[in-house]
Amino acid sequence: MSALETALARLKHRSPVLEPGHVWLAGAGIGDPGGLTLDVLSGLSQADAVVHDALIDPAVLEVAAGAELIFAGKRAGQPSMRQEAINALLVRLARDGRRVLRLKGGDPYVFGRGGEEALALAEAKIPFRVLPAVTAAAGVLATAGIPATMRGINKALVLATGHSADDDDEPDWAAFARAGQPIVVYMALQNLGRISAALLAGGLAAETPAAVIVAATMPGERILVSTLDRVAADAAREKLGAPALLVVGHIVSMREKLTSLQLGSLK
Amino acid sequence: MSALETALARLKHRSPVLEPGHVWLAGAGIGDPGGLTLDVLSGLSQADAVVHDALIDPAVLEVAAGAELIFAGKRAGQPSMRQEAINALLVRLARDGRRVLRLKGGDPYVFGRGGEEALALAEAKIPFRVLPAVTAAAGVLATAGIPATMRGINKALVLATGHSADDDDEPDWAAFARAGQPIVVYMALQNLGRISAALLAGGLAAETPAAVIVAATMPGERILVSTLDRVAADAAREKLGAPALLVVGHIVSMREKLTSLQLGSLK
Repeated sequence: MSALETALARLKHRSPVLEPGHVWLAGAGIGDPGGLTLDVLSGLSQADAVVHDALIDPAVLEVAAGAELIFAGKRAGQPSMRQEAINALLVRLARDGRRVLRLKGGDPYVFGRGGEEALALAEAKIPFRVLPAVTAAAGVLATAGIPATMRGINKALVLATGHSADDDDEPDWAAFARAGQPIVVYMALQNLGRISAALLAGGLAAETPAAVIVAATMPGERILVSTLDRVAADAAREKLGAPALLVVGHIVSMREKLTSLQLGSLK
Repeated sequence: MSALETALARLKHRSPVLEPGHVWLAGAGIGDPGGLTLDVLSGLSQADAVVHDALIDPAVLEVAAGAELIFAGKRAGQPSMRQEAINALLVRLARDGRRVLRLKGGDPYVFGRGGEEALALAEAKIPFRVLPAVTAAAGVLATAGIPATMRGINKALVLATGHSADDDDEPDWAAFARAGQPIVVYMALQNLGRISAALLAGGLAAETPAAVIVAATMPGERILVSTLDRVAADAAREKLGAPALLVVGHIVSMREKLTSLQLGSLK
């Protein structure tokens, strides 16, 4: 018996039953299957339809042996399925009496658009369950040797998305800059120049540590450590790709002190 | 075979080996054992010393059968072990060649003081691993039927701690109020009056929805839904106790639309 099988036998946990006509909105965490939660794992083996995003480890999808796997994510060069279409698909599968697992990268409710799916299900009177997961601000930062919070450095943390349709729709970067606490930006790459310029304009110092972390715990993982004034140019020169997380603030400097002893960390 | 055993057999995941003299800094998530990650579960069965906080489900600790269990949390009416003493304990156990699991509620790095423990271990040249977990801003909010982010409501989220030694040490609540994005406050109860007053003074509207969620997924779980101007008085009248999370912002109003269909949610 592996340590994991022994542990599971001792825990005697019974996950909830995924009933026909129900939908579970679940998160797969940041990549490594070891970060899956027990209830998500159980949901994978109970589902007969799995609607999943990109960046889910193939080994995780193999748990759903026998289930229909429906890809709803973004493929290189192709637009992803529209959110309205995903909502409608979940409703239709549930109405057909399927046991539906909707599997997202990270946490379903932290910039995962799970709220819209939950609302669509509630409006269609379909029972659903939400299974939270490790979000990038915890998991990706930890892998990079960066504590999300550190006594003497920060008492708060801002999570924001870098994807905005236009300027009007953007978070108020200047207000966050003035708050003087670290900022973690999900999907940061496309607007990296605009975001870092807005944080500088809001008053953050040019030399504020900034890191971009790409594909943590997945093939191709990379980290770029820079400063706020140079991070966009550095990321462009290094040709970093998605999925990328930006973290700005003095917590980034903890990395130097921690990674030499931290097992499994991104060097 | 349960769904969970079937799933585990299909996944074929092998968790890392917890070696003698190493420490794993792990999070147990928000309470329900179904939210444990696989690697944390594995660590529990491999450890021969477990240093744990309060609020860990006894069933979870039973996985560490045979390990020495050392309680480092807060008991009613008693101060918790000082952080420096916990750091020294972890170092000593590792130097004694023990396989050490440090188990915290929530995520170890999100207001969990895991960064200080990691730093103490690195300074003592002790190899350690960080195992992230579901943090309250994802898990507790989801249980309460509140998406952490919702299209049309927010593009960012502030996480902050309500525990501050004094005013100088506090997050700049007014700056966060001006940013106009939802705010999640961990350990919110002790300074709830001061925090809500500061957010009002910073410009948030009196009628901004605010909720206090106590002990989500644990015995005694409760939720209080109120508005920013009344939440401190309401929490005092209801005699709410720890652990309590405060959430302020229009995401709170999603709860009315979601909980009737959401399985396992806090009603």
